[in-house]
Amino acid sequence: MTTHVLDQAVALYPIGAHQYRGATSPAYANMVGPFGGITAASAMQSVMQHPERLGEPISLTVNYAAALADGEFAIAARPVRTNRSTQHWVLEITQPGADGVPATVLTGTAVTAVRRETWGVDDEPMPAVPAPESVARVTIAPQVAWPQRYAMRFITGGIPERWDGEGDTSLIQMWVRDEPQRGLDFTSLSALADVFYPRVWLRRAKPVPTGTVSMTVYFHAGSAEHTATGSGWLLAQARGQAFRNGFFDQIAQLWNEAGVLLATTHQIVYYKE
Amino acid sequence: MTTHVLDQAVALYPIGAHQYRGATSPAYANMVGPFGGITAASAMQSVMQHPERLGEPISLTVNYAAALADGEFAIAARPVRTNRSTQHWVLEITQPGADGVPATVLTGTAVTAVRRETWGVDDEPMPAVPAPESVARVTIAPQVAWPQRYAMRFITGGIPERWDGEGDTSLIQMWVRDEPQRGLDFTSLSALADVFYPRVWLRRAKPVPTGTVSMTVYFHAGSAEHTATGSGWLLAQARGQAFRNGFFDQIAQLWNEAGVLLATTHQIVYYKE
Repeated sequence: MTTHVLDQAVALYPIGAHQYRGATSPAYANMVGPFGGITAASAMQSVMQHPERLGEPISLTVNYAAALADGEFAIAARPVRTNRSTQHWVLEITQPGADGVPATVLTGTAVTAVRRETWGVDDEPMPAVPAPESVARVTIAPQVAWPQRYAMRFITGGIPERWDGEGDTSLIQMWVRDEPQRGLDFTSLSALADVFYPRVWLRRAKPVPTGTVSMTVYFHAGSAEHTATGSGWLLAQARGQAFRNGFFDQIAQLWNEAGVLLATTHQIVYYKE
Repeated sequence: MTTHVLDQAVALYPIGAHQYRGATSPAYANMVGPFGGITAASAMQSVMQHPERLGEPISLTVNYAAALADGEFAIAARPVRTNRSTQHWVLEITQPGADGVPATVLTGTAVTAVRRETWGVDDEPMPAVPAPESVARVTIAPQVAWPQRYAMRFITGGIPERWDGEGDTSLIQMWVRDEPQRGLDFTSLSALADVFYPRVWLRRAKPVPTGTVSMTVYFHAGSAEHTATGSGWLLAQARGQAFRNGFFDQIAQLWNEAGVLLATTHQIVYYKE
């Protein structure tokens, strides 16, 4: 059994108490530096493999403080408060700065907790959409590595065919899964939370420079539901709420094919012009 | 001119580099400990009054790691990365633990940035609702201090009249403002992001114990828009997306009366049963 390319990309090696070493992967390269989702996945991975972890992830916030350089990085994952059933994590990724001193390139926090049986309901039902088999697969940005690590089938809100500045919506709905297929877990789901191309490109029908500033993921399902989801398709939906003064937000949901809302996620993104 | 009760509650005193001392305020007390919104506002205040701050807030994430005890606390607000136009903050609130050693009660991150003139659009328009003057003011939880610090006029989704377990929606819309009135700023808006009573109470029509675990606020407007908003009403809307295994999420928006989307905010909340 060979290791999946995602697992290779997020592989971390302990280098001290609460400290890991990782490296960017060409397989998940963006136009410059790594795909933000794979960096979020590395941050999540540092929590998942930490020997003191209590329970499973409930939330993850990552702030992209600077562009990651291709190459090695260090992750600190520190459980700063452990309660009876919840645990709070402070995360940081550093790379050597111009002066060789480690400089912060990502800050983050996470919460893990023991899930219990309770009353529950999904109040954001999966939208009625065509089945994955009936939607055409598309290849986006063939010159960029990371989109090729996902199979994407756009239902609505695909990359504009004409960059004419005449966009009128930011809504995207797509079926998506790892390529090659891989069983879902918290690490891969953290990357999938960032799988959407920039909403401002769609809303404006104009491909301006962008960069995610901060992303938060709320996990509504545990590893048992991930196992049940397996390597199947996820329905991924995202839209923006406000675009103003160089920043826009995005709210997104990820359901499995059975209609279970696995994660909700939000981000705020820098854009130029 | 007397100091507004909110400013008294979030007053912070420098006690060292990146370190402030504050104290909980009886005026913003919750059933146990302080209102989570006022704690978020204190965290934001530590950034606002920091002498090294660059620009204005874009995002704030706070994680409630433990119940704050009534009394003094320390806030660390550290600018860990300052770029040309953005700055990344790591925040922590501590109180002495049982052993007297400072223990983490809140972790957080924030991003500040210089806003620039760009193309922009609000993609989440303010819903059509009756004007504040035509909606009845309500008093909720009169035995609890913090709700009395806000004037609330519920349009839909008020506190259930009967706790019969027969709820069918989590949507709330209300006009809200500080009481007494106070000019809006990033600090007061951070508190207002947490002004909603728990969505699970409405969705279930059952008042189960809850506690916010993590909250993120994205600020879509700068201080000029806050000044224009003044002490007027905000339309505040919130709903849950998933309630499962002891945690539910909330997505919310805050518009000023002119219809400008000032902030979008999300939280994940623990609930019992």
